[in-house]
Formats: sequence, C-alpha cells, structure tokens
Amino acid sequence: MKYSDKILNTPSSFTRNILKVAGAEDVISFAGGLPNPISFPIDALQETINNAIEVHGPKLFQYSTTEGYLPLRQYIADKYNNNFGLSIEPEDILITSGSQQALEMISQVLVNKGEGIVVEEPGYLGALQAFYLTEPTFYPVQLTEEGLDVHKLAETLKTNPSIKFIYVVPNFQNPTGITYTAENREAIYEVVKKYDIVLIEDDPYGDLRWNGEKLPYIGAGRLENSVLLGSFSKIVTPGFRIGYMITKNKELMDHVNTAKQATDLHTNIFSQIVIYEYLANNDLVTHISKITDLYQAQASAMLQAMEKYFPPTVTFTKPDGGMFIWVTLEEGISALELFHKAMEVKVAFVPGDPFYTNKSNVNTLRLNYTNSSPEVIEEGIQRLGKILYDVTAKVLV
Amino acid sequence: MKYSDKILNTPSSFTRNILKVAGAEDVISFAGGLPNPISFPIDALQETINNAIEVHGPKLFQYSTTEGYLPLRQYIADKYNNNFGLSIEPEDILITSGSQQALEMISQVLVNKGEGIVVEEPGYLGALQAFYLTEPTFYPVQLTEEGLDVHKLAETLKTNPSIKFIYVVPNFQNPTGITYTAENREAIYEVVKKYDIVLIEDDPYGDLRWNGEKLPYIGAGRLENSVLLGSFSKIVTPGFRIGYMITKNKELMDHVNTAKQATDLHTNIFSQIVIYEYLANNDLVTHISKITDLYQAQASAMLQAMEKYFPPTVTFTKPDGGMFIWVTLEEGISALELFHKAMEVKVAFVPGDPFYTNKSNVNTLRLNYTNSSPEVIEEGIQRLGKILYDVTAKVLV
Repeated sequence: MKYSDKILNTPSSFTRNILKVAGAEDVISFAGGLPNPISFPIDALQETINNAIEVHGPKLFQYSTTEGYLPLRQYIADKYNNNFGLSIEPEDILITSGSQQALEMISQVLVNKGEGIVVEEPGYLGALQAFYLTEPTFYPVQLTEEGLDVHKLAETLKTNPSIKFIYVVPNFQNPTGITYTAENREAIYEVVKKYDIVLIEDDPYGDLRWNGEKLPYIGAGRLENSVLLGSFSKIVTPGFRIGYMITKNKELMDHVNTAKQATDLHTNIFSQIVIYEYLANNDLVTHISKITDLYQAQASAMLQAMEKYFPPTVTFTKPDGGMFIWVTLEEGISALELFHKAMEVKVAFVPGDPFYTNKSNVNTLRLNYTNSSPEVIEEGIQRLGKILYDVTAKVLV
Repeated sequence: MKYSDKILNTPSSFTRNILKVAGAEDVISFAGGLPNPISFPIDALQETINNAIEVHGPKLFQYSTTEGYLPLRQYIADKYNNNFGLSIEPEDILITSGSQQALEMISQVLVNKGEGIVVEEPGYLGALQAFYLTEPTFYPVQLTEEGLDVHKLAETLKTNPSIKFIYVVPNFQNPTGITYTAENREAIYEVVKKYDIVLIEDDPYGDLRWNGEKLPYIGAGRLENSVLLGSFSKIVTPGFRIGYMITKNKELMDHVNTAKQATDLHTNIFSQIVIYEYLANNDLVTHISKITDLYQAQASAMLQAMEKYFPPTVTFTKPDGGMFIWVTLEEGISALELFHKAMEVKVAFVPGDPFYTNKSNVNTLRLNYTNSSPEVIEEGIQRLGKILYDVTAKVLV
C-alpha cells in the first residue's frame, strides 16, 4: 500500500516515543506539557454538570452546530473585549477540539503544497506537526529574548511571496517561555501590515502570568487577517478539548467552518455547555490566581535548583508565566545524547530537535515544571546537573 | 487573500443552508439525521458521571493518549468479537471525534491530489465532504436494492489503478436505508480481495435493526486492508462525539495515529471514560431495543403515510433499520424545486443533490423519521403528498 506524500512527510515518532519512555512510573518527567491536576476545579465542574443536566437535559447529548455553543462564544468575546479593548462578536468565534484543531484547519484552508509558513525557531512542535500535513515550505524566524527577530521577518516576507501565514505564540512561548516585548509586538505589526497574509497569535498560556502586566496582541483588533487562538485546557481542563479561533475575516472563518464540518461536524457539546456554565457561575480570576501561585512556586524551585546544580556554562530562560523553561547547553553538546544519559538516572525532558524544522542534534532542551512538586523538581534538577557536569567535563577534555 | 485549492473545491453551503431553513420552530423537519432525544439514557449517564468523578478524579480532566482510553477500546473489541466472531485487539482500535473524523483522517493518509476514491451513488454527504479535502477523483458506483453494483465496481477497479480506497455503508445506508445482502457482500469481497486497496465499512447504524438478522461484514476479519468504523452517536449520545476506527493494518493505523495527533492530540477523555463506564454498568442490548422499537414505529408510520398520501408513481425504500428512507420521484421532477415548494407548507427534507458527486437537480430525496412522532410524521407526509400530486399533475400536462 502506498500512503499520501503528506503523511509520509509528517514526523511523528520522535516525541511520541520520548513521552512513552518518559511516562514510566519511577521517572521524574519534565518532558510533557501537562497542567498540574490539582489545578482542575473538579468539585465545581461536578456541581456544574449536575445542574446543567437538570436545566438543559437532552440538549447536552444531541448533535449541535458547527460554530459552537452561542453563550460560550459570547463569554469568550466579552472576556477579550474587557481585557484587551477589542470588539469581538460571537460570530467571529469558532469552537474547536482544542486550539490544536484550529492550527490544522487553518493550515488546510490556506496552504497549497509548497507554499510558505513562517514559524518561530524554536517553535511549538504540535503546530509544526499540524502544518506538515499540508506539505508547506517552512520559513523559520529566530526567537530572541525580546521576541521574533523582526529584521529576519521583514526580509523573509519580502523575498518569499508564497507565504500564507505567520504563526507565533507571543506569551510564554512553547518551548522557550519567552514573552514578546511591547516594542517587539509593535515592530512585528509594522512589518506584517504591509502584506495580505494571516497572522496567527496562539495564546494558550496568556492567563498564566505571575509577573508583569498583560501586553496587547500584535494583530488582534487591527490586522484584517488577524487570527487569535485560545483554549480552556490550561485554566480549566484539557480533558474536555475545548479551544477556539477568533477572526474578523468572514471569508476565512467561513472556509474554516467548512473544514470543521468536514472534519468532525462539531465540538463535543456536553463539554461546551459545561465549560460555559462553569465560567458563568464561578470566579475564574480567583481560580487562575491559584494556578499561577502554584506554577510560580514550581518555576521558582526549578530556576533555583538550576542555579545551584547546573554548570555555569548552561544558560536558561526565566519565564514570567506559562509552563516551560528553555535550556541552552554548551556548543557541541547534543541534548538528544543527554536525554539518553538522563533516562539512565530516571529524569526526562524534551531534547530541542522536534522544535526545529531543519536542525538536529541541537544543544537546547525544554523543561516543564507544572506537573511536579518543588521537592521532586529539586531532586530531578540535581540529577540532571550531575550528568551535565560529567558531559561538560568530557567536552573540555 | 488566496485560499487553498482543497478548500475552494469542498462544497459546504448547500446542506448547511438547507438545515438552517429546516431548523425553524414551526417546520416539520425530515431533513436532519438526529437521533430521537428520548433515546438518550440521560439518568444513567448522570449517575455514571458522578461515579466516574468519584473513582477517577483528575484522570477525567487531564490530557490523555492519542489512541484512546484502553478499557473503552477493549470493550469495543469484545463487542465485535462476540457479535461477529472477529479477533480484534485494543491496539487495532483508535478512538476518534465521531467516526466523521476517521473519514477525514483516512482520506488524508491515503490520497494524493487526483487519486481515486470509490463511493456509493448516492453516498453519505458528510463522507463526500471529508474526502473532497484531499482533492480526489471520485468513482461513484451505483447502489441497487441488493447493495453495490458489483459489475460496475469490478470494472471501475480494473480500469483505475489510482484508486486508494472504497467507502461503503453496508447497513441501513445513508441516504438510502438500503442494506447490502449477504450475497452482495460476498461478491464485493471476491472483487476487492484482488487489489491492494483499503475497504472502509462505515457502520454507525448497524445496531439499529428491527427486522432480519445481523449480516457479516464484507472485509472485516478477512481483508488485509479492512477498515471498520463505528460510533456511539446513534446508540448512546452524539453530543459526546465518540467514534472509532478498527483496522489490523498496523502501518495504516500508525499513520492515522500521526494524523490524529496533529489534528487534535486526542479525543475528549472525560467523554471516553463516561461512555466506557456507562457501557460496563448498563445493559446496552435492552437500551438499544428501546431505540429500535421507537424507530420501527416511526418508520412504519412514515411508510404507511407515504402509501396513503403519495402518488403511486413515487417509489421509496423500506428499511429494516437505521434512520432514513430514500424517495424516487417521477423522471423529470427536481427534488430541489420540490424542496422550495415544501418549505412553503413548512415541511423539510434533503434533496438528493449533495449525495452525488457529479449530478444536480436529481429526482431523489432523503427523509428522516427518527426525530418526529408518528402523528407529526403523518401530518408532514400528508402535506408533502399534496404537493407531489400538484407537481405530478403539472408534469403530465
């Protein structure tokens, strides 16, 4: 049997295999991107479910509309309008099966084989995987501590007219934890506004901020082809798979709606109604502050342990929110080789390789801190540190 | 902005617009394909949910595996093994967001632009829509009262080596209600086994049988590239969007798993666990017999009303289960024109057009009987009959 070119060109096994190894019971895993389960509002969700069944009955269990549950779309519109002074309407919103699904659909709707996509380097591996399915040409643009390299972006857009969209994660980026500065956002806007291309701002972590102030989006509210993606996975529950796409471009929305209909008809309506009723009847701000207190303590434990146990030649990002720290090893050290050594002492992380479209055996890696206690974090980082000293010593020899 | 060829070639508005019109409060709608909401086991599901939250806690709300919940996959394997003497293992099963999602993913995994897909004529419009996204060449093969036209199928496969898969709905087909006979299944198997292509048997309605005996599948258990699709939408709840794909072809499964991961990471785990716990702790056979009793009465009411109120020149199928009746009008009468006349008297159905890949203004239409009471069915068919007499009279003049 012959398979399609698009699936043969889509990488898969790397991360799946790593997460399989990392999932063993006795492994300290910094590899996944899991929210801390103690952050799920289980009691409130259970109460909400029972009330929703009483009130809505069969509506929770029947087929529903492709666009998604209207009150939930209204809630999302209000949230962004209140927080960011936007003027989003419910018809600008499509509920998706996680924001991951929006990535796959937008790519299908915009990209013919060989056409261009600008991605961050390093970029979210799940997005890269979704984009691979349309057989695009990737144009990676480097991330700096301030955000995207704007000169490289400008040059890339100028010289590659086949580019259909730019994909960025401006807040607490996955995998680096970097947040684009206000100046960087403005500079990106000035470059992108000259082109008739889509800017996707994927913001699953924006609410998880424990330091500094919320920053305005790059394109939302002012670029005609702005797309904003969001999710309830990191602030309520990922198990429900409820994400959303926001755009004021009606033609784009209509095409994505068609793709959604063809892909799975509509998103789980039970979960949509329950999420809405939960949001309408609980204090989300207080709930989120509990999560950020937790994550700040965990991030802080990891950063302190890294200062203490890692060789001084190892550098790393210091996030103001989100779920990840990005580590850069000395030139010449392969994070993938380090991974195998780390597994021998039962510590897991994701080597940098799958976050790049055209590099391998890189000297970078991603650490997640949200799903381990401070004590476990210290123990895991100490073990990693010991290996890093061994490896660094060998390089020096 | 330019969109991709694949989305521009995917039809959407036809059915969506029809269902919008048909959805008005005062319309008698035979247009949708909705299960009767009184068939949802709401009390049992609520009890199951409360128990599942007590027992499983955070597991219901966390990220999960791409393959799907293992106990649910084991349940599905056991069900098919017991009912059809197959030897399915949990690793042969992938849980999807409705079986609709499996259609889209299998098509992505197998078909390059221009390659062939064999579909039933008429065929399930949702499947056609999913397949359009890969820009295939469709090879429709006519349905007869016995099933697929086997001579046409043999000739089609022989002369078109680009064909990647065949898509059939052998039980109570959508839109016709036709069930393939045992002889027809055997004849299809004899033709298909000579080719290295995939046979997809989509069986969402198989359990909804009130007349005759379950028949063996065409390819499941004996064709190397057999794919079987199933769903809990018609026997428990469609709102949860839980379907599944079964295949013993490990390479195909692996590729679809990659597509699933790229598309939405995994299916809603809350709903997977709840469906499993419901199935494990309730008598599904008794529940299904309640649904089939209900649908048999509704189908019977519709067939009797059609005998009574339709002109004798109008013919229609007489299903032994499922959700649909297929109506053939006199040559030259457009079902689409009839639709507009019917909407004037507040009755809706789906004109045949979207069930064909290369025909329009056809003289066929689909009626759904599962979501209306016998009284409403009689009233709606009486109104339709009156219009049909008017239209037929005009044709004769």
